[in-house]
Amino acid sequence: MSSQNDAAAQALPDRTQNPAEDKAPEGGEVSKNAAKKAAKAAKLAAGKADKALNKGIGKSEAKQPSSKAAKKKIDGAAQIGIDVSKEEDFPGWYQQVLTKGEMLDYYDVSGCFILKPASFYIWESIQNWFNDKIKKMGVRNCSFPLFVSEDVLQREKDHIEGFAAEVAWVTHAGSTPLEKKIAIRPTSETVMYPYYAKWIRSHRDLPLRLNQWNSVVRWEFKHPQPFLRTREFLWQEGHTAHLTEEGAGTEVLQILDHYAHIYEDLLAVPVVKGRKTEKEKFAGGYYTTTVEGYIPATGRGIQGGTSHCLGQNFSKMFNITVEDPNAKPEEKLPPVYVWQNSWGLSTRTIGVMVMIHSDNKGLVLPPRVAETQVVIIPVGVVKSLPQEDREAVFKEIDELKDKLESVGLRVEADLRDNYSPGWKFSDGELRGIPLRLEFGPGESKGGFVTAARRDVPGKEGKSEIQLKNLTTAVPALLDTIHDNLFRRADEQFRAHRRTLTNWDDFVPLLNAKNVLLIPHCLTEACEDQIKDLSARKAEEDSDVPEDARAPSMGAKSLCIPLEQPDGIEAGVTKCLNPHCEKLAEKWCMFGRSY
Amino acid sequence: MSSQNDAAAQALPDRTQNPAEDKAPEGGEVSKNAAKKAAKAAKLAAGKADKALNKGIGKSEAKQPSSKAAKKKIDGAAQIGIDVSKEEDFPGWYQQVLTKGEMLDYYDVSGCFILKPASFYIWESIQNWFNDKIKKMGVRNCSFPLFVSEDVLQREKDHIEGFAAEVAWVTHAGSTPLEKKIAIRPTSETVMYPYYAKWIRSHRDLPLRLNQWNSVVRWEFKHPQPFLRTREFLWQEGHTAHLTEEGAGTEVLQILDHYAHIYEDLLAVPVVKGRKTEKEKFAGGYYTTTVEGYIPATGRGIQGGTSHCLGQNFSKMFNITVEDPNAKPEEKLPPVYVWQNSWGLSTRTIGVMVMIHSDNKGLVLPPRVAETQVVIIPVGVVKSLPQEDREAVFKEIDELKDKLESVGLRVEADLRDNYSPGWKFSDGELRGIPLRLEFGPGESKGGFVTAARRDVPGKEGKSEIQLKNLTTAVPALLDTIHDNLFRRADEQFRAHRRTLTNWDDFVPLLNAKNVLLIPHCLTEACEDQIKDLSARKAEEDSDVPEDARAPSMGAKSLCIPLEQPDGIEAGVTKCLNPHCEKLAEKWCMFGRSY
Repeated sequence: MSSQNDAAAQALPDRTQNPAEDKAPEGGEVSKNAAKKAAKAAKLAAGKADKALNKGIGKSEAKQPSSKAAKKKIDGAAQIGIDVSKEEDFPGWYQQVLTKGEMLDYYDVSGCFILKPASFYIWESIQNWFNDKIKKMGVRNCSFPLFVSEDVLQREKDHIEGFAAEVAWVTHAGSTPLEKKIAIRPTSETVMYPYYAKWIRSHRDLPLRLNQWNSVVRWEFKHPQPFLRTREFLWQEGHTAHLTEEGAGTEVLQILDHYAHIYEDLLAVPVVKGRKTEKEKFAGGYYTTTVEGYIPATGRGIQGGTSHCLGQNFSKMFNITVEDPNAKPEEKLPPVYVWQNSWGLSTRTIGVMVMIHSDNKGLVLPPRVAETQVVIIPVGVVKSLPQEDREAVFKEIDELKDKLESVGLRVEADLRDNYSPGWKFSDGELRGIPLRLEFGPGESKGGFVTAARRDVPGKEGKSEIQLKNLTTAVPALLDTIHDNLFRRADEQFRAHRRTLTNWDDFVPLLNAKNVLLIPHCLTEACEDQIKDLSARKAEEDSDVPEDARAPSMGAKSLCIPLEQPDGIEAGVTKCLNPHCEKLAEKWCMFGRSY
Repeated sequence: MSSQNDAAAQALPDRTQNPAEDKAPEGGEVSKNAAKKAAKAAKLAAGKADKALNKGIGKSEAKQPSSKAAKKKIDGAAQIGIDVSKEEDFPGWYQQVLTKGEMLDYYDVSGCFILKPASFYIWESIQNWFNDKIKKMGVRNCSFPLFVSEDVLQREKDHIEGFAAEVAWVTHAGSTPLEKKIAIRPTSETVMYPYYAKWIRSHRDLPLRLNQWNSVVRWEFKHPQPFLRTREFLWQEGHTAHLTEEGAGTEVLQILDHYAHIYEDLLAVPVVKGRKTEKEKFAGGYYTTTVEGYIPATGRGIQGGTSHCLGQNFSKMFNITVEDPNAKPEEKLPPVYVWQNSWGLSTRTIGVMVMIHSDNKGLVLPPRVAETQVVIIPVGVVKSLPQEDREAVFKEIDELKDKLESVGLRVEADLRDNYSPGWKFSDGELRGIPLRLEFGPGESKGGFVTAARRDVPGKEGKSEIQLKNLTTAVPALLDTIHDNLFRRADEQFRAHRRTLTNWDDFVPLLNAKNVLLIPHCLTEACEDQIKDLSARKAEEDSDVPEDARAPSMGAKSLCIPLEQPDGIEAGVTKCLNPHCEKLAEKWCMFGRSY
């Protein structure tokens, strides 16, 4: 058994320092002066970042808005690990977890972020899984240009209205002004559909199912947030055309199931499948389905991914038709406008996952998407041990690693000689590695490894695994970790998804971090009213960053869940909004949201 | 054996028609009127496209510059297949092969193209292969932003000089002018290296090896050419940092080997590995290595992919240093600037592959990257056959498909009932499917399939494969096809790579579509002179599109091959340029080039 203390109060070097600052000394020790200096620098950076954000675009040196980072320290925790708590300063915590966990870095163009290998690995895992599924459905990947001409972009009025304010325009090449400005795609409907009109010649060309993995740009002026609201983001966008409404509708739900699967079975994040209201549906589409998640720390809902049926709206704009296959020979029937879908899932997935699982020690990564699933750390290999005994332990660790890799696990052996075991424990926790294996002379003698789960801190998460069971027990334990992360998040979501039939409970329960299922008429005017009634006016102040204002936001409709509770009697049950005279159509989920 | 005629003069519907035109009638027949109409439209489109190009950005309707497409028909060939010959109108042929082979479509922003699934599949094959290799080297994928601020872009002077004229600038978001314009990355050195300076804290962080798959934008004003010269293109860019020159140098060559492997073992394209001269090396770098290909039809060399050692130039600009690991305790040594590499391979690969292998019947795809490797086509299933016999053949074809798929092959069964076998043969040829299997009542009775190779037209490419050998014989035949494509291209490259020791032969051999290995001094002034001496001045006319001017271009240095012939005697052998007084340093490969 390990003789190490896994409270790991040893100082961790700050991996998120600004390039302009001094580099931290190597090794486990960071002086108090350095820590103070870092705190001061963080404050400074936060101030600069706020200023920069107001100007629209920031400067290179001002990009780490750890707002309250330097203020609210976690009592007794390591000074240089995560130094704010998830409970007290959620935005500051989120930023530190991402940067110190090596998932992301801030970038010198405001609203843009660097996805470091640890987070990009998660995206690649999602890509691999989803590519496999959609290729089986007959979807083919392709690549359309980044640019779209103004004419084409504006072909569909409702659609462009949803994006116009956020479109980035290229006006110059080198020092030469372009004759016509060119947009960077905010999404690719209008980029792709002129070609669908050209390529679809016959009903035999249907369904046409294309997908692309790319980035899109939406130049939002709201406070950016890594993964959740960024000016450029990575996603996939599927665009398909079908002969019938039914064919399109079937696919919409297949894709929605895949999205739910990605959240639940890869990221261990529970979601509710549902349909968006008319107010919240995709601009220019027919109907939108969605997977909605929930962030317990803030009590806010979050849209996880959307699968839209566009109906025939775009096919009419872009003239995408086929001859009617039901026409008899010689019969002249009008052409059939195709039914279209589009569906997208973005790197927002990663942000949701981090917000839900991670804790005050850092990241917690679900095992199926973690770049490193297991870290093996030598323990008890003290300097006084004879050299050959130390080498024997290192050799055994290499063998353990090989064994685990031979069953397809992703394993790191942390044999660095300039860090103590405790430092390495904290480092592994900061980076969210799901399972730590400790191995030293004691373990060697006893024929076991000491396992420490990232999802269950302290002694409860520790166990001994016999070496003879290693290749079965470790994969099983990783599955247990996944299941536990999912179960925990699912319990929280269920506990905070409240079914209401009394309006008086609405605002108090909303303020108690719940999302609320209510009987609703599904009209836009009523939604606006509910938003209004549930906002705390006094605190609405545009100078306060959105995160701080979040508790005062009004509730909006998140979705109409596909699984409906009982209790709405057609023609009888009223909409819950006391100012609304209409009858309830469905249970609709409302909440504050991202 | 098949009773079908595989000369397949049956008309193929034109898949590249303009959206504005009438749709071709369904089925195998296209009237002569329709063919004439299409030819006329192509002429019109070509005219419009030329105009549009001169204006910088094209209009939606003017995007298919099949210049001479409508003029030079191949005698006796199908009217609606490829209707110009590779020999007589190479640019027109290339455009038709790509569009009719469903690889690519023209786009309404000039210089941008749509990569359709068939070509994107090839790119995905390259991605999968290369990802596997580089991950084994310790390279990790990540994602840096599309945008770069002006300040950062211009940090390295020589480097930006190489790109400045082609940088696309974003100046507005919606209708709001940005306070500072923002560039779209032409490459990511300056995007990434400020963060390398931040992340690299110690020699223990080295080597740092990151790669990204993305698109970059270089707003060229020269005549665009699909895959070869486009304003946006897909590539991978690797950026690594090393403690020593030696470490960096080793990686440069490992990557170059991987690039050569992609060309030779995936795309069946022979390349010459070499080093660029000072004149041709990467702007701001230390030295550049390259794989150079050769297009027999034009006799021009083409740069296939480059792996650069950047030396310490960027690390000095961006201040990327570590402490000297050789310093004794307490010893103060100056910090060490890291050694950096960058290396990139783009979708140009696909263009080179198409130009080399494809023929007057359409695409020829090498089997390892073809989305469909085998197409099975029913033959002899005439209408007069009893329904149950016809169905029996279809069922057997399904079984053949399953069998071949069970050994990992990518197979299509073309059971469409509205096309004749001959039409399907031509369609498969147009799309470059490496192997066609014909199966009908005769084959069923005899227990075999008739195989027809795409790389060897006519009877010579036909054989019978016993059904009992199917799952071994077909993969073997696909390997044979790959080998044959490579061998053929390699023979052509070798036959046109001429070693010269007499200047008088230079221009005549250049005009005879050769690339030329000559003893050279490696100085820039001498290269400029050789280019001048080998250009045919009279034909230099900027109003003529580059493709037509190509035969008049001067020769430039392609590379200094790593494998050097004998014959240069140090201190004795003169540079081949008659106006150069210097001694030869190396054999250098010169040629007209893309």
